[in-house]
Amino acid sequence: MAFEYEVLKTCAQTGARIGRLHLPHGVVETPVFMPVGTAATVKAMSVDELKEMHAQIILSNTYHLYLRPGHELVKKAGGLHQFMNWDRPILTDSGGFQVFSLASLRKVEEGGVMFRSHLDGSKHFFSPEKVMEIENALGADIMMCFDECSPYPCEYERVRAAMDRTARWAARCKQAHQRPEDQALFGIIQGGLFKDLRRISCEQISELDFPGTAIGGLSVGEPKELMYEVLDDLMPHTPKDKPRYLMGVGSPDCLVEGVLRGVDMFDCVLPTRIARNGTVLTWSGRLVIRNATYAEDFMPLDPDCDCPVCRNYSRAYIRHLFKAGEILGARLASYHNLYHLIDLMERIRQAIWEDRLADFAKEYFAKAGRF
Amino acid sequence: MAFEYEVLKTCAQTGARIGRLHLPHGVVETPVFMPVGTAATVKAMSVDELKEMHAQIILSNTYHLYLRPGHELVKKAGGLHQFMNWDRPILTDSGGFQVFSLASLRKVEEGGVMFRSHLDGSKHFFSPEKVMEIENALGADIMMCFDECSPYPCEYERVRAAMDRTARWAARCKQAHQRPEDQALFGIIQGGLFKDLRRISCEQISELDFPGTAIGGLSVGEPKELMYEVLDDLMPHTPKDKPRYLMGVGSPDCLVEGVLRGVDMFDCVLPTRIARNGTVLTWSGRLVIRNATYAEDFMPLDPDCDCPVCRNYSRAYIRHLFKAGEILGARLASYHNLYHLIDLMERIRQAIWEDRLADFAKEYFAKAGRF
Ligand SMILES: [Zn+2]
Ligand SMILES: [Zn+2]
Repeated sequence: MAFEYEVLKTCAQTGARIGRLHLPHGVVETPVFMPVGTAATVKAMSVDELKEMHAQIILSNTYHLYLRPGHELVKKAGGLHQFMNWDRPILTDSGGFQVFSLASLRKVEEGGVMFRSHLDGSKHFFSPEKVMEIENALGADIMMCFDECSPYPCEYERVRAAMDRTARWAARCKQAHQRPEDQALFGIIQGGLFKDLRRISCEQISELDFPGTAIGGLSVGEPKELMYEVLDDLMPHTPKDKPRYLMGVGSPDCLVEGVLRGVDMFDCVLPTRIARNGTVLTWSGRLVIRNATYAEDFMPLDPDCDCPVCRNYSRAYIRHLFKAGEILGARLASYHNLYHLIDLMERIRQAIWEDRLADFAKEYFAKAGRF
Repeated sequence: MAFEYEVLKTCAQTGARIGRLHLPHGVVETPVFMPVGTAATVKAMSVDELKEMHAQIILSNTYHLYLRPGHELVKKAGGLHQFMNWDRPILTDSGGFQVFSLASLRKVEEGGVMFRSHLDGSKHFFSPEKVMEIENALGADIMMCFDECSPYPCEYERVRAAMDRTARWAARCKQAHQRPEDQALFGIIQGGLFKDLRRISCEQISELDFPGTAIGGLSVGEPKELMYEVLDDLMPHTPKDKPRYLMGVGSPDCLVEGVLRGVDMFDCVLPTRIARNGTVLTWSGRLVIRNATYAEDFMPLDPDCDCPVCRNYSRAYIRHLFKAGEILGARLASYHNLYHLIDLMERIRQAIWEDRLADFAKEYFAKAGRF
C-alpha cells in the first residue's frame, strides 16, 4: 500500500509530534492544516496559489461531489486530481457529517441513510458500501469511513447507538474498499462528549487497524473547553504509530490546542468562509476589514505576515474591494487567511523540532488571543 | 512631456498601423485592447494574472473611483498605480459616459453636470475642472476630457449641442489639467451617428492639439454597421501622428473592424462581464459553458487557445464551477476571455507587420463569425 506514516520527532515540552505521511501524490509533513475544497475547488483560490502558499494536501467533500457534478463524472475525468488539476494529495470525507447536518428528511437504518439533497430535494441513499464506491471513484489519497454523527447536545444512549453503528459501518467500509493499494482508508472515532464512549469507540476503531485515526463529532457547537477535555482524555489512547486527524477543526487557537494534545491533521472551512465575509486572521488576532477604521489605513492586513497579499496591498485597498463587492477582495482575504494557518503550522512544527511548543503556544495566545 | 507616439508600420493591404505609445509607466504596443478595471480592479483578476496574459495597459473609471473609495483617498495612497499595485500604464476615462448613462436626476448646464450617485442617491457636480482635479489625483498615464455623450437614438440638434459643448469643455479641461508633464490628456470626438457632425467635432478637437484622439459616443446601442459607416467616414480625417482610441468597444469582431479602419486603442467590459455569466470567446465563436452539452466535455474551453486555463482545465470542470456558483469559474472564464482578446490583438499586429491584415480578417470571420 502506498501509505506510510513516520514520527520524526516528539516535543520534549509537550509530547506533540512531527511526522511524515507518504501518500501516492506526495509527502505531507504533519502537523498539517488541510484547506477545504468542498466542490473540487478551494473557494476563490487557484491551485497555483495553493501551491505557492505551501498547501500540502486539500480536503474535498464526498457529499457535495456526489450530488454535483457526480462521482461518475469525476471518475470519467480521470479522478478528482485530474478533474480539478491538483496533483498533490487529497483527502475526501465520507459525507457522514453533511448527511447528518445539511441534508433533510433523512431516515437512518442499519443499512444506511436515506436523505434528500439540500440542492434540489432529490432522494438519495448512502450506505458504507455506496460511500466507498463514491470515494473510490473520486480517487483521493486518503478517504474516510462513512460514520454516524450525533448532534450537540445529544443524550447518552443516542450517542452510544451512533457510535456502535459507526464501528459496524467502519468494518463494512473496510470490506467494501476497492482500492486499498492506492487509497488509504481512515476510521472515525465517535462518542460525542462522553469520555467513556470516546474510549470505547477508540478501541472499536483501533481494532480494525486502519492506517489513520480520525476524531469526528467534535467542534459541532460545544464549548471549546469541552472539546479540549475530551481530547485530553482520549488522545493518549489513540494509536501512536498512526496519524490522528481532528475533523472539521480549524480556528487558529484550536489548531494550537489540538497539536498540544497530539493531533496531526486538521481541516476547516473557517479561513476561507470568514475571508469571504471580510474577516482576516493575524498574529495579533482577528481583523474585520470592512470596518471604517481601516478606510485610510495603508498598512498590510498583518504587518507580521510575509504573504504576497501583505507585501503588495493595503488594508484601505482591500476594504475598498469588499465595499465594492469585488471578487478580488475575497481572493486576497482567502489567500492571506489560508497562508496564515499554513504559516502557523510551519511555526508549530519548528517549535516541536526545538522542544519549545509550550513556550510557543504561550507566546502565541498572549499576542493573538482566542478566536 | 513623458508621452510619445510613433507609427512603426502601416499595413499595405489595409492601411492599419502598428505603433508604440511611450508612457510614464511603460511602452504600449498598438493596436491594443485595454482590460477595464472599473473599481481599481479588473473584475476577478489579480495584477499578476494580468501581467502573465500580457495586458499592457488597463482602464479605470473616474466616476466609480470618485464615488468609491474617493479620489482623495487614492491620492493619499500614492495614486491609483500604488493603490491597486499595478505598475504598468493606466488610462482613466472622464466619467462623462457614466454620468450620462448610470447616474440619475442629472441637470446639464454649461458649467457642468449635477447628478445623483447610482450607489446612494447622493448629489454631486462634475465640471471639466472638477474632473481634471479627480483625474490628476488618480494619476493615470492617460486621462480623458470630460465630454457630453448623446444617447442613441438622438435628434440632430441635440447631438450638435452636446458636440459643441464637448469641444468647449475640452478646452477647459486642457486649461485645468495640472500634471501635463506626467499625464497625457486625450480629447474626445462626439457627434453621434451624423457624419457631418463627426467631421466638425474632429476639427474642433484636433485644433486643441491633444496628444491622442478618442472617438466617444459609439457602441451605445446602434447597429454595428452604422458604427462602421461613421468610422469609415471619420477616421481618414483624424490626426495620423496621434493614437486613435475607440472608446467602449471590445467585442472581437469590432476590434478587427476597428483596426481595419485605423483604430489603435480599445477598451470594453465585455470579456469580463460575459465571462462572469459563463460565456467564453473562442477562435470558433462564442461558447456558453453552462450548457448541458458541455457536462461531460473534457476538451479545453478553446482547443486553439494556449492560455493556462485551456492548458489545465476542461469544459466539464469549468461548467461544474459555474453550476456550483464557485468564484474560480468566474476567474477562469475571465482569464481566458481577456487572454483571447490580447492574443487577438497580438495576432492582428503580426498580420499588420506582414501586410496581410485583410487576409487575416477574412480568415478570422470565416471561423469565429460575428459576435
Ligand atoms: Zn498576509
Ligand atoms: Zn484559453
